[in-house]
Amino acid sequence: MNKEEIAAQMRALQLQICEGLENLDGKAAFSEDAWDRAEGGGGFTRTLRDGNLLEKGGVAYSAVHGPVSEVMRKQLQLEGESFFATGVSIVLHPHNPHVPIIHMNVRYFELNTGVYWFGGGIDLTPHYIIPEQAVLFHQQLKAICDQFDPEFYTKFKSWADEYFYIPHRNETRGIGGIFFDHLHDHPSLSKEQLLEFCLTLGCSFPSIYAEQAALGRDKEVSAEQLKWRDLRRGRYVEFNLVNDRGTKFGLLSGGRTESILMSLPAVANWEYNFLPELNSPEEETLKLLSKAQNWL
Amino acid sequence: MNKEEIAAQMRALQLQICEGLENLDGKAAFSEDAWDRAEGGGGFTRTLRDGNLLEKGGVAYSAVHGPVSEVMRKQLQLEGESFFATGVSIVLHPHNPHVPIIHMNVRYFELNTGVYWFGGGIDLTPHYIIPEQAVLFHQQLKAICDQFDPEFYTKFKSWADEYFYIPHRNETRGIGGIFFDHLHDHPSLSKEQLLEFCLTLGCSFPSIYAEQAALGRDKEVSAEQLKWRDLRRGRYVEFNLVNDRGTKFGLLSGGRTESILMSLPAVANWEYNFLPELNSPEEETLKLLSKAQNWL
Repeated sequence: MNKEEIAAQMRALQLQICEGLENLDGKAAFSEDAWDRAEGGGGFTRTLRDGNLLEKGGVAYSAVHGPVSEVMRKQLQLEGESFFATGVSIVLHPHNPHVPIIHMNVRYFELNTGVYWFGGGIDLTPHYIIPEQAVLFHQQLKAICDQFDPEFYTKFKSWADEYFYIPHRNETRGIGGIFFDHLHDHPSLSKEQLLEFCLTLGCSFPSIYAEQAALGRDKEVSAEQLKWRDLRRGRYVEFNLVNDRGTKFGLLSGGRTESILMSLPAVANWEYNFLPELNSPEEETLKLLSKAQNWL
Repeated sequence: MNKEEIAAQMRALQLQICEGLENLDGKAAFSEDAWDRAEGGGGFTRTLRDGNLLEKGGVAYSAVHGPVSEVMRKQLQLEGESFFATGVSIVLHPHNPHVPIIHMNVRYFELNTGVYWFGGGIDLTPHYIIPEQAVLFHQQLKAICDQFDPEFYTKFKSWADEYFYIPHRNETRGIGGIFFDHLHDHPSLSKEQLLEFCLTLGCSFPSIYAEQAALGRDKEVSAEQLKWRDLRRGRYVEFNLVNDRGTKFGLLSGGRTESILMSLPAVANWEYNFLPELNSPEEETLKLLSKAQNWL
């Protein structure tokens, strides 16, 4: 299984996810933007806006290669002269605050030295946390992980809790999920199986999100709830621009800015020192974000 | 002139600026939030919202002290055991897109070793750049600088161009202004004169902004112009969260998050790969942001 085959699988995954999400939305269609990278490779960035369910979303595919730059050497501690990277990255911002923001990414990286690894993750950022829905999400992730390695879920869930944390807010970004990196083959899991793990996770994305969306998309929404949604989106922007190592590395290493920042919402709000009412659903959500929860 | 006296002058400056801005706005009044810093000192953060002219703004004063932390030692290359810092920091987001966003900061820093310095800056971020207004702004800054040192304006203008640059957008944040740091006394400028420079700059802030505001606040606004304003605010958020060394250091070193992020607008927008119409005022503004201009 060579890198071209993996890239082709990633591109197929992107298209499959987009089809699933268009069906789920029922109105919006993805637009595709093809781009080339000066140093080698390129991508297809697919975005949509103003759907029934989704206000703004993107499903990006890229397959890039070239010399290992100074920034990559320093930030990623890479030892090699040239690299190849391919993957799919998704962020969806729904209209309805009772539907969560979702993010997923699966990627493959290899160096000319022969070293390779898979990475990725999926996490959910509800504007209002409903514990039953958080449990459902984590159960689904555990079921996928368990098909490949009984240790994956516990390990990758903790990794997500560590990764999706906003120190300056003393908050987790949402209810977490799984995050993994530097996955390579070992006696009980081949390279093919690791790719299969990434693809299984990716293929399950539309149905995982469909379940979450179904539980919230028809709920009525007040002006206060929309305000809260936009403040939570402000936190999402803060995480992505201040804390997210992937975003920071992408911007610093000369990645394609529009593809990287397709993760940002259409609208975000900030209000000085906003404090939710005592015992409100907003305050309840903040409490649940104050530390990583064990949902299962 | 000791640090307590400088802190008192900074506090007086904050109050004077707030009074000037309330007069300028004609409707909104500042609310004051007092806070303490666990390691020593504290501040008064003054914010307003929903004014006639200003949608959201803050004028923060702080005077903090304590041991030099590991982060400070590393990021600021400080050699000393304890520090004292005081200053005033301002960001104003107007309603009308024909009025620019403005930022100013003046600050004093000293170490227990006896080393001290002043720093600060002021810069303007018009949603629509009008060259005559940019020239006016820079003339005013040059006139203030020239009262103290004939080299200040040229030196500090270049420093601002370098500082207020967004590499991932290949854009300057706005039309720049002046930026300075590590100013200490030398044979022709005493410590008292440097403080006077900071205070003169600070005291001139309301009138500088009043002139800019007068040129735009009564102009009619279309829905397209509001959309453009919110996209430009998105860029402002990007600069502050991704590039601004002051914000990054503040968040990283455990500064008070709400006071640091009072710089963010009430609302900001993002749209995938937004391109303004050919020969539109929006495109003209982008052209003028593509590199630092010599306005004088």
